[in-house]
Amino acid sequence: MKKQRIYLFDTTLRDGQQTPGIDFSVEDKIAISAMLDEFGLDYVEGGYPGANPTDTAFFAEKRTRRAKFVAFGMTKRAGVSASNDPGLAALVQAKSDAICFVAKSWDYHVRLALGCTNEENLEAIRASVETARSAGKEAMVDCEHFFDGYKANPDFALACAKTAYEAGARWVVLCDTNGGTQPSEVREVVKAVIAAGVPGENLGIHAHDDTGQAVANSLAAVDSGVRQIQGTLNGIGERCGNANLVTIIPTLMLKPAFADRFETGISADALAGISRLSRGFDEMLNRAPQAQAPFVGSSAFATKAGIHASALLKDPKTYEHVPPEAVGNHRRVMVSDQGGKANFIAELKRRGIEVLRDDNRLDTLISLVKEREAEGYAYEGADASFELLARRMLGSVPEFFNVTSFRCMVERRFDANGHLKTVSEAIVKVNIDGEERMSVAEGHGPVNALDIALRKDLGRYQAEIADMSLVDFKVRILNGGTEAVTRVLIESHDSTGARWWTVGVSDNIIDASFQALMDSIVFKLMKNREMAGLVAAE
Amino acid sequence: MKKQRIYLFDTTLRDGQQTPGIDFSVEDKIAISAMLDEFGLDYVEGGYPGANPTDTAFFAEKRTRRAKFVAFGMTKRAGVSASNDPGLAALVQAKSDAICFVAKSWDYHVRLALGCTNEENLEAIRASVETARSAGKEAMVDCEHFFDGYKANPDFALACAKTAYEAGARWVVLCDTNGGTQPSEVREVVKAVIAAGVPGENLGIHAHDDTGQAVANSLAAVDSGVRQIQGTLNGIGERCGNANLVTIIPTLMLKPAFADRFETGISADALAGISRLSRGFDEMLNRAPQAQAPFVGSSAFATKAGIHASALLKDPKTYEHVPPEAVGNHRRVMVSDQGGKANFIAELKRRGIEVLRDDNRLDTLISLVKEREAEGYAYEGADASFELLARRMLGSVPEFFNVTSFRCMVERRFDANGHLKTVSEAIVKVNIDGEERMSVAEGHGPVNALDIALRKDLGRYQAEIADMSLVDFKVRILNGGTEAVTRVLIESHDSTGARWWTVGVSDNIIDASFQALMDSIVFKLMKNREMAGLVAAE
Repeated sequence: MKKQRIYLFDTTLRDGQQTPGIDFSVEDKIAISAMLDEFGLDYVEGGYPGANPTDTAFFAEKRTRRAKFVAFGMTKRAGVSASNDPGLAALVQAKSDAICFVAKSWDYHVRLALGCTNEENLEAIRASVETARSAGKEAMVDCEHFFDGYKANPDFALACAKTAYEAGARWVVLCDTNGGTQPSEVREVVKAVIAAGVPGENLGIHAHDDTGQAVANSLAAVDSGVRQIQGTLNGIGERCGNANLVTIIPTLMLKPAFADRFETGISADALAGISRLSRGFDEMLNRAPQAQAPFVGSSAFATKAGIHASALLKDPKTYEHVPPEAVGNHRRVMVSDQGGKANFIAELKRRGIEVLRDDNRLDTLISLVKEREAEGYAYEGADASFELLARRMLGSVPEFFNVTSFRCMVERRFDANGHLKTVSEAIVKVNIDGEERMSVAEGHGPVNALDIALRKDLGRYQAEIADMSLVDFKVRILNGGTEAVTRVLIESHDSTGARWWTVGVSDNIIDASFQALMDSIVFKLMKNREMAGLVAAE
Repeated sequence: MKKQRIYLFDTTLRDGQQTPGIDFSVEDKIAISAMLDEFGLDYVEGGYPGANPTDTAFFAEKRTRRAKFVAFGMTKRAGVSASNDPGLAALVQAKSDAICFVAKSWDYHVRLALGCTNEENLEAIRASVETARSAGKEAMVDCEHFFDGYKANPDFALACAKTAYEAGARWVVLCDTNGGTQPSEVREVVKAVIAAGVPGENLGIHAHDDTGQAVANSLAAVDSGVRQIQGTLNGIGERCGNANLVTIIPTLMLKPAFADRFETGISADALAGISRLSRGFDEMLNRAPQAQAPFVGSSAFATKAGIHASALLKDPKTYEHVPPEAVGNHRRVMVSDQGGKANFIAELKRRGIEVLRDDNRLDTLISLVKEREAEGYAYEGADASFELLARRMLGSVPEFFNVTSFRCMVERRFDANGHLKTVSEAIVKVNIDGEERMSVAEGHGPVNALDIALRKDLGRYQAEIADMSLVDFKVRILNGGTEAVTRVLIESHDSTGARWWTVGVSDNIIDASFQALMDSIVFKLMKNREMAGLVAAE
């Protein structure tokens, strides 16, 4: 059976921009459209030329090479001819391959928002589509509020879709603008539209996530005959967001329920870059990627449970619905107080530490990890501290240096000019090869000061740690009150791009931070030696 | 038509605990089970007694009043009788109303993970269910990998479900353990199970979000006849998480496609508390709530300026699929602050502060609050700090005392006996009625020391604050790195049972803590005066 082609339409730069807190500059839009084009999407919608200076500037040039570049805008206003409508003129002049018109298809909105008659609305759809086609552009029509409109007045909603199709629109897109439509309703309405004479090959779906079902609604529409899906990167968009293309694409390409029947314009190689695409986009938005995101999240193939992990090691397919490498992700088996012996051996092996199942040190390590996790250590979030603990237990971590004492001081007082000022200072004494060194530093707070002082003078190790720095610092109070136990998680990185996580726990936040900072430095020194093959020589 | 009852089963404390980075203490579990019970869920699964010390301790008592309290565990092992299986004994002894057994239903897993025959697996299901029932408990069986197992060997998967049902299990739960099943497959398989003789009234669904469709899969199962849904708060869980009950519950109760046919045990009043429940749970996990979460996210009913906002102002229903107040959320239109001013006046009035709409100080207060919230202050979670700020702006807070300077010191060194020791000390200088007082204290950490020193000698106010103490202390880093901005939230209480929350923000954690501690003390002194009607006399 020949597979049916599904067309993918990205609206990250248009509907995605409706996300509270997200605004793209022209440069952002150029960078993102290049990412989308390269990935293999069929349509990249760039914005609304004429509506704001950014979008007008963005449409001064065609911004895609392979994908069709789409301008978004309203159908012509009632009461003016298509040739006299300035909005339509701006759309036609934009350097796009296609125009996506938004048209009302709920009669109540025609009255309330446009203040025109139903017939004038149909005429606006027809005239706009014809104008785009005469200008040599592909035309498509987003039927706004289609599903709610269909419930209120099915004849009028269907008339809008048919008018667009008959005027020559390549795509008639059914929009669930308010996002509340359920998958069973999508199926029913799509069938009715096809029965009314608009073929599935000309239908698109535009879903929102207001009941957490934008992906399911998009796929239900495809199941019912629709052949174009509109969505955004990482599901950004107004309110709860648009359908997430980063979830839909692997589902279409990897799950037999779809992959056996459909194909997209995206190659298997490109699909293996989707985790990088998704995380890279979050980097641009300056936000942390969602660990639990389907397919691409750092936890998407992570296993914590002991019973699952042992079967996972025997055969990954037993607990993975798709191979992580197909989407450029990877498997993580984590250590935790629920983990069994098999988890431990697998985790150690992944780090290049070989230990036999009946080695006594393994039992000691497991009970030590459990004991420390009961105290509040969280090794699953602190890979580097776990690896250090394991290597120490197996005797392969040299004592590079020894912090004999430290002191942190925070003082708030009036300075010479009478201004209230808070100063944080830390003093560290370190013993390296029998020689004592003392460093002092100021910082934005006691932990920052301690971090700077600790890394200020480590003698012959100083050059090695020059390229490392802290990326993130998380504090969690494990039970109530200022007397509570504090857990500090620290993320570090260096110039090679490596990132590692360390943990410290104490009833004293400074002490907990000190442990995590120390682990971070020692881990870096150990890794340097491992990479240089020098562990034995130390 | 009589509505069908849907039963809601929460597994936040069991499967939710599989989330990377999440570990609940016994105290956490007690607090969360109380929240779930109060909200109106039918079943609260608490964990796996016998598998780890936390869960064993948690099951030493029944922890719910209204909801059924459920213990989770494996069916008896092959080759031992039910009465000789220690795992089963621990389950039966746990103080639960029901036992949820996890049973293999994919023949490949029976061989691979259990190493027993298909018949031994069926026998284990039967014997385990019978043991639970003889102990007077409700029995249910989670059929692990049911959908994948059904694809591989439908007869065996169906035999597992039927065996559980015929042995007397109240619920046979179809689990999509690997999370890759599509809604159309769920529909098909559920129908086959019902056709094989297990009634829908005895079937449950347990979905995971690996293709972003856990909610859709759960609801597709309900559509096909299933009457119990398993899920978690905010969709936490292994890998991409479990079905999100916070999304499913409003969909079932508010969307006509379900609400017209089904009912749950949750009242409309409880539903109006679901935004608070969801955000409160994230607070416990010390993580920021997702702004775009369906129904409960801060952006779920937010509209950016533009074509939608003007129609929204004319008639909210035009762009809202459900009323935000039904889920305890609220509308945000980012075009006008007019609504904001009315809200502010109402907020102040609620605290007994009367201010006129055209009072200039009101505008100053609104802009100050906005400015400070942009810096990281969170007045929503710090009522007392908000009230203090407002009263200060309106000139009604006396300056009780003035902290002229403080100093915190943390020192780690070897003590006289050669043991490594960390000591925290704080020194505070306070001016009261022109007289300077100096106090010093040691604590478990710098903040604890500062708290003790601050409250050690406040002269004529000392007696008044003797009954107050800190209950909780939360730290959140608002952006990465040790140079990040730190927000501290402090909860205090006194002997009258009153509780109040204060906030401090700074790049220095000690400074942020100091602000919140000061607000807490000043609020207490102000409240004492208000209660005694003495504000005027001060």
